[in-house]
Amino acid sequence: MAFPAVAEQLDLLRKGALEVISEEDLERKLARSLKTGAPLVVKAGFDPTAPDIHLGHTVLIRKMKHFQELGHTVVFLIGDFTGLIGDPSGRNKTRPPLSREEIAANAETYKAQIFALLDPKRTVIDFNSRWLGALTPVEIIQLASAYTVARILERDDFAKRYRNGEPISVHELLYPLMQGYDSVALRADVELGGSDQKFNLLVGRELQRSYGQEPQVILTMPLLEGLDGVQKMSKSLGNYIGIHEPPAEMFGKLMSVSDGLMFRYYELLTDLPSREVERLRVETAAGARNPMDAKIALAKSIIADFHSPQAADAAEAEFIRVFRRREAPDDAPLLSLEADEALVDFLVRRGVLASRGEVKRVHAQGGIYLDDQRPAEITQVLKKGRTYRLKVGKRKFYRIG
Amino acid sequence: MAFPAVAEQLDLLRKGALEVISEEDLERKLARSLKTGAPLVVKAGFDPTAPDIHLGHTVLIRKMKHFQELGHTVVFLIGDFTGLIGDPSGRNKTRPPLSREEIAANAETYKAQIFALLDPKRTVIDFNSRWLGALTPVEIIQLASAYTVARILERDDFAKRYRNGEPISVHELLYPLMQGYDSVALRADVELGGSDQKFNLLVGRELQRSYGQEPQVILTMPLLEGLDGVQKMSKSLGNYIGIHEPPAEMFGKLMSVSDGLMFRYYELLTDLPSREVERLRVETAAGARNPMDAKIALAKSIIADFHSPQAADAAEAEFIRVFRRREAPDDAPLLSLEADEALVDFLVRRGVLASRGEVKRVHAQGGIYLDDQRPAEITQVLKKGRTYRLKVGKRKFYRIG
Repeated sequence: MAFPAVAEQLDLLRKGALEVISEEDLERKLARSLKTGAPLVVKAGFDPTAPDIHLGHTVLIRKMKHFQELGHTVVFLIGDFTGLIGDPSGRNKTRPPLSREEIAANAETYKAQIFALLDPKRTVIDFNSRWLGALTPVEIIQLASAYTVARILERDDFAKRYRNGEPISVHELLYPLMQGYDSVALRADVELGGSDQKFNLLVGRELQRSYGQEPQVILTMPLLEGLDGVQKMSKSLGNYIGIHEPPAEMFGKLMSVSDGLMFRYYELLTDLPSREVERLRVETAAGARNPMDAKIALAKSIIADFHSPQAADAAEAEFIRVFRRREAPDDAPLLSLEADEALVDFLVRRGVLASRGEVKRVHAQGGIYLDDQRPAEITQVLKKGRTYRLKVGKRKFYRIG
Repeated sequence: MAFPAVAEQLDLLRKGALEVISEEDLERKLARSLKTGAPLVVKAGFDPTAPDIHLGHTVLIRKMKHFQELGHTVVFLIGDFTGLIGDPSGRNKTRPPLSREEIAANAETYKAQIFALLDPKRTVIDFNSRWLGALTPVEIIQLASAYTVARILERDDFAKRYRNGEPISVHELLYPLMQGYDSVALRADVELGGSDQKFNLLVGRELQRSYGQEPQVILTMPLLEGLDGVQKMSKSLGNYIGIHEPPAEMFGKLMSVSDGLMFRYYELLTDLPSREVERLRVETAAGARNPMDAKIALAKSIIADFHSPQAADAAEAEFIRVFRRREAPDDAPLLSLEADEALVDFLVRRGVLASRGEVKRVHAQGGIYLDDQRPAEITQVLKKGRTYRLKVGKRKFYRIG
């Protein structure tokens, strides 16, 4: 496999990334891979519970896609070892252990979802119970000896609980070590994770050093904000877009986000190079581009990823139809129609537009909508006894009838 | 096996004990054992490193002996699992892992030493690698989930290190849990240990509860003071008596201890019932008993345990011979002997004692020593040209010749 030049790879890999520790290490690894032809092993860990992936999850999967498209080997690692245990203290009744069958079923569900972005033929799917479940007690002691209690208790959530006197069971200290050991077992070159995973990713980096391996590069992706633009996208907050939602719903939700969030989504939910996203932002800010158009393009890109380009087109058309209708307020001025009359005559007679010439010009620019459709001809006849919704230009709404 | 009555058992078991947690539990377990005829399982853990047992170690082994003599099952548990690992962090070069052969050899050395007190036929010798080495990763997680980090860090040594910012590796937290798991694996009714082991013993008690077992009683023995009466007996401090030291050395060292320490040793190093030790103390304090005699009896009891009663007698005789000689100072007054003369005449003539009657009385009380021996007759003839060492009463020394 021939890899692109290092600088070109770095350009794509850095897109959207929050932190790369360290950039130098990544550059060196890429250069070596380019020289030897050996792809990098890129690990990302996922929870073994039943997946219902929303766009927030795709940020990481998209970064895997970037590595994969550059020719590297991505490992979609399902952390089933801990899932097989559940809550061993038995205190948390909501975390019963998963059976092997449930984990296998969840893996299939994952595949159905992640292969929207990843290439099935080139994606390694692995399970950490394969090596964690095979550790001997001596190996576990050795693993646990490679890290100090104090450093694990530095992790934000542990630090807070310890400070507040909330119980932390000893096994909870083992989990980050075991997760870190996954990198040792896989000999990972790179580990990807959300910014909330940074601590665990660093453990992996340091454990590899303890085990005499070259430490992995860690690359963290930001947590995607939900539709509200403030909170992290999550199912429980209701501010999410599931990747299997119907195209029309996706479209509608995406059109509802703020312009600022739109550019964030461009960065994290599309493959558009960062510099083009930046140009889009600048041009929109300068008024040279319509933000609505940019938002439509974003929505179509996302729908094309998880459905198809055709579905994206259809969703756009449907959205516009519904959207335009929604735009016509019920209290728009009513223009009564006394008899059948051509549209152009009606518009001039009622003073909506100043002249036949202006009607022609606005119509040619696509600025006249009758019942959400652009009339083919301005000579179309309005029938007495019927009602119409009329929109002229961007902001003028009327009812006719 | 018929066990003695509970009160009688408790009387022996409490002898010398620092703490019993809880007395009620012990009483209940003993009562049940008496009723069902099933002996209690009594665990005591020992280090797998090469043993060189001194009297300090025998305090615990003697308590095992008490349980054994009452008909219970004592388990001499060699903690070889951790020994097989050494210092897994590799930081401590002085703790290399032991091989299975070394551990087996150490076990043989232990046997040769502990069977001086314990009955070989009724002593179970076990190794915790048997179950700890067979734990699956899931079982280790479950074990680690049964205890909180905060509670382990309460252990004095951990608390101090954590407070001082000294590194504590995560595996160090696993060791007390694994040691506690030994009690689960053995279904121990009682665990014995030094007072410095109290924390670990309590972990065992609590883990059994987590594993649905009846919690073990923990019985801690004090750490024996060394010959100086202040510091804990230890090889490195040089204030110890090894159980394989020659009888004469044991005797000499034991005769050197203070009267206060002597009673402590009676409590911890003999089977003399506590109430008799107490009586001895009271009578000695009242001057009704010679502390020297009590000390000799102590030394003989200890030598009889680790050598034989004959060796104890011989050591006593040898000690007295050397000791009395040592008692006669070189600068004792010289009484010249002009001619052969009967001892009684000589003593009166030279004014050592006032009259023949007094010589008879002191001699009858055993207060006259000639060359460290009590002369059979006061008419024994002192020969001119020879020299003698003479002791009259407790403090009067003379040289004759």
